[in-house]
Formats: sequence, structure tokens, C-alpha cells
Amino acid sequence: VSEIYIGIDLGGTNIKIGCFDEKLNLLCKTSVITEAQMEPKVVVERINAGTRKLLADNNIPMESVKAVGIGVPGPSNVENGMIIAAPNLPLFKNVPIRDMLSEKFDKPVVFENDANVACWGEHAVGAGKGIDNMVFFTLGTGIGGGIITEGKLLHGFNNNATELGHLIVRPGGRVCGCGQKGCAEAHASASSTAARAQEAIEAGAESSLKKVLEDNKQITCKDVFEHAKSGDKFATEIVEETAKCLAILCIDLLHTTGPERIVFAGGMIAAGEQLLGRVKHYYEEYLWTLKAEKTEICFATLGEDAGIIGAAALALYETGNK
Amino acid sequence: VSEIYIGIDLGGTNIKIGCFDEKLNLLCKTSVITEAQMEPKVVVERINAGTRKLLADNNIPMESVKAVGIGVPGPSNVENGMIIAAPNLPLFKNVPIRDMLSEKFDKPVVFENDANVACWGEHAVGAGKGIDNMVFFTLGTGIGGGIITEGKLLHGFNNNATELGHLIVRPGGRVCGCGQKGCAEAHASASSTAARAQEAIEAGAESSLKKVLEDNKQITCKDVFEHAKSGDKFATEIVEETAKCLAILCIDLLHTTGPERIVFAGGMIAAGEQLLGRVKHYYEEYLWTLKAEKTEICFATLGEDAGIIGAAALALYETGNK
Repeated sequence: VSEIYIGIDLGGTNIKIGCFDEKLNLLCKTSVITEAQMEPKVVVERINAGTRKLLADNNIPMESVKAVGIGVPGPSNVENGMIIAAPNLPLFKNVPIRDMLSEKFDKPVVFENDANVACWGEHAVGAGKGIDNMVFFTLGTGIGGGIITEGKLLHGFNNNATELGHLIVRPGGRVCGCGQKGCAEAHASASSTAARAQEAIEAGAESSLKKVLEDNKQITCKDVFEHAKSGDKFATEIVEETAKCLAILCIDLLHTTGPERIVFAGGMIAAGEQLLGRVKHYYEEYLWTLKAEKTEICFATLGEDAGIIGAAALALYETGNK
Repeated sequence: VSEIYIGIDLGGTNIKIGCFDEKLNLLCKTSVITEAQMEPKVVVERINAGTRKLLADNNIPMESVKAVGIGVPGPSNVENGMIIAAPNLPLFKNVPIRDMLSEKFDKPVVFENDANVACWGEHAVGAGKGIDNMVFFTLGTGIGGGIITEGKLLHGFNNNATELGHLIVRPGGRVCGCGQKGCAEAHASASSTAARAQEAIEAGAESSLKKVLEDNKQITCKDVFEHAKSGDKFATEIVEETAKCLAILCIDLLHTTGPERIVFAGGMIAAGEQLLGRVKHYYEEYLWTLKAEKTEICFATLGEDAGIIGAAALALYETGNK
């Protein structure tokens, strides 16, 4: 083994750890419980112990580890490697996790927020491979994202850039958790898509989803896509609105940072062509005719390992031979 | 005189030429008629002759000129220094103006589109001085713009970035010249602001602007702002809508590239606080409450010389000691 890079994906439930060679081939991986209610030093020790056990179990000496990358949830400060706050890690307030880990491992640690990490992973070895100008969206409970321009992650002033779920696509529309109205996240995230359906049915809309609500007391985004696929008119309208909002979001990003490729990731992409086809449809319909655009819209390819791959890829990029 | 930088602003009516020292102090300037109907080599020779005359008239030897910068209208290719097309220069199709000028002057020539040049000028010595992450809008017949991230102009794939007038702020709204609906340019440019007023009055809206339309056969953006200032309710509503659209545009850009400062330029900023105050008002009203934002919104300070200053500043940046 020549050079090893560790990728860590810190979540509120699990810590995923992956071990990669210098070509970013996954050698081995593991997952340990976060114990998110514990204080930061306990969680940091769990990361340390989990990583050392993974290496030992696979006969990889610590000496071969060149660097460690970690992706973290919530607001963070990339410059000093701190988690400012994280909804799923209640005791994490201004935690200098990069330096804490670097001390444990005695290795360079590279730190980013989880959306940027996943974006970088797709750029390094996934759907954005070889693409120096790309936009990346995650469609889950919320909508997050990352932007790569000229081969580098965009951070902006105070790391304030790429809050891509909060561009306004429906002015005066639904109230977002952030306090704005009409955010992409408030209309087109998985949870907003489900919420729009549920609210309309509670208000009397006719749909085959009505029985789902009665049986399960709630409607999920998956339910909406499934019933749309089965031909339910109401569910189809809900999906169409999600696609329209995402199309506007793509156009806004196209005209801002000029990406060559736009990559969607996150739970909602399980809907496959049923989602992607409609987003592309409305993107083409709404987009200017001033000139032909070559920007492609596609899905991410790394799946659940995106976090560990991206973190290892960033560690390689920041510390290896660029 | 130590080092001289020339800034050229190529417009459809005039060619402005400025001569700057290495601290970007304006030493002298001139303006010559473009003769836009002529073929490119004639226009290039007019630039050459105008520049040489300016230098000679001011006893500045050509030897002291270190580099020349030029800002050009219309779609262009920054990589190879070509004007692809320009509405106001009908014979300019795929003209390698950078190399043509470089041959005439026997100096390095730096080339950019005019919005990026003005953006760079504000960044170098104007309202964005010292600001490494900024967004720049020009509010004129259309809405153009530029973005600086980490101290560099953003270009995107195929120089396709920063078509900032074509973010969609009113989905399904007015048809833009570009073919989209609801673009910022279609609602909040100077000409769109005037057009919205004129169309509504022609459709029967009551306003003191009615007499302006009868007398002048048209309403200008300036008329709208003046009548709003005089208390006309209808004109005020038109101005408010312009401010609302620009506020949404600012929020969309804030969440995309995370600027420290947003700078507005162009003819419409003559309206002063009447415009800026209302844009800031709606920006604050619409913006998220998730966290406090420090981004400032302000007006450009370089005025009509922005083009020549920006072009010279780019020439200095690209060829001088960065």
C-alpha cells in the first residue's frame, strides 16, 4: 500500500468511515453509531477509535495514512475547521473538530460541510468527473448544494455561498424554515413536495393519496411519486410543480455561475426519470432561446458513499500532488 | 512617467480612451466616434489612431505604455479575445479584436466584456475596493452584471456565467427579449420599468404620467421615478415593483456566490436613494431570518469613466505585478 486517504462522513445517527488509495479506490469502510447526544470529545474519540479499528481490521498501518477528510453537518467555518452548530448534534457549538481530529491522528485533516463534500466527491470521481464548472444540488428534507468554478469549491464571503435551497423560485410562496417565502426548499424538497400534497388533501383535494393519509396519518414524497406514476392526476400536479421549481432553480444557476453540468443528488433522485425527465422538460420550456445551451442536467452516481468518497477526495486534493 | 496603462471602452456610438499611471490615476482621456457601421479594421484603426493622438497630445511616449485593456459590448470570447457579435456593431462577427489591437500597438492587450470591465473597475478603485467577493449589476436598457469571487472575475463554462439580468424573479411574468418569461431584465431594467408604466397607462391606469405619454408619445424610466417622487400613486407602484424584483435578485445572488457587497451601476442609479432605499427595504423584508447577513448593497462610484478605468485596471492586473 502506498498512500492512504481516510474519508469521514459525520452524521447525526452514524459516522461513516472509508479508507481509500491514492486513486480513490475504496479499500474498506465501516459505520459506527454517532451517539449524537454526547459531548464533542466523546464523538471525536468514537471517530478516532472507529478509524483505527477499520485500519487494524484490514491490516493497513497508520503510517500509510497521508491525510484525513471530514464532512460535517450544519453551519461550519471552513477556515478554522469548526462546527458552529448542528441541528442533529445538540452539544456541538463552535467545536474545532478539525484540530481535535488532527491531534488524535497526528495527520493533516481537511474539513468541509457535507454538501460541499458530496459535491466534491461527484466532481472527483462521480457525475461531475472532469467538469471544472458544475452545480450540485441535494434534494432531501431540505435542498442543499455546492458549486465548483474553475475546478474549485466556491465559498464566498464568510463561507456564506451556495445556500442553493434558498433561491426564491415562487415569490410570495410558501414560508420556508429559513424565514423567506417561496424558496426552492419550501416548494421542491422531498419534505415540501410531500407537505404540499398533504395540505391540499387535508383541504379537500381529490386523490388516491387520500387513503394513504388516512392509513398512515402522513404522506411521503415517495408516495406522491408512486401515485403520480400510477396515474393519479393530483399527485401528478404535485410532481409537476416540484419539477417546475427545480427547472427555475437550474436556470437561475445557469445564468449565475455558468456550469457545464448540473448534478442532482439526495433521496428524491430515487424517483429516477420520472423526476429528471420533467425537470429537463420544464428547463427546456422556460430557458432562453437567445442561444443554444450545452449545460447538461443529470443525477449523481456515488449514492450513499458520496460523503466518504468526497471527504477522502478533498483530503487527497488538499494534501496530495494536485 | 513610469508605467502607463491604457483603458478602452468600445461602444456603439463612441470609443472612450483613458491613460492611467500604475496607481490607476487618470492622466488624460478622450472620446472618438466609433463609426459603428464600418468594418472592424476601420474601427480598430480608429482606436489605434485615437490612442496615439491622446498619448502624443499629452507628451506620453508609447514606450511607457505597459499594456492596453479593452471592454467590448455583446457576446464575446474572453479566451481568444474575439467579439462574437454586437448589436451596435453590425459588421463585427467573430472579430479577433484583441490580437488586431495587440499588433497595432505592439503591446499586450487584455480583453473583457463591458459588464465585467465595469465590475472590475469598481472592484479595483470604486465601490467594491478591497472586496474580494462582490456582485455587480448594471441597470440600463437591460440588466447586466459581473461577479468577483476570491478576487477574480467569474467566467464559467464557455464564458457563460453572469447573465444576471436573466435570473427569473417573476415566474410566468413578462416576456424578455431573451425568450424567457419573468427575467429580472423584463421587469426591473430601466426600459422595462418604463414599459410597465406605459403599458398600464395605455390599458387605462390613472396617473399623472398619462399626460407625459400624451405629450411625448412615450414614458421614460426617469419620468416614472420623477412622478413617483411627486407622489403619484401609480408611478410609486411601478417603482416599488422594480425594487421588489431587484431585492429578489439580490437574495438569489447572496445565496449563490455569497458576496460581501452588491454594487448597482447604470443609468437607473441616477434615481439615488429613491431606488436604493426601496431595494434595501424589500431585501430586508424578504431575506431570511435564519442568521444575520452582513452583505451591503450600494451604488457604483465610478460613473461614466467606469469602462476606461476598469479596462486599464484589468490590463494592470493581468500584466503587472499582481
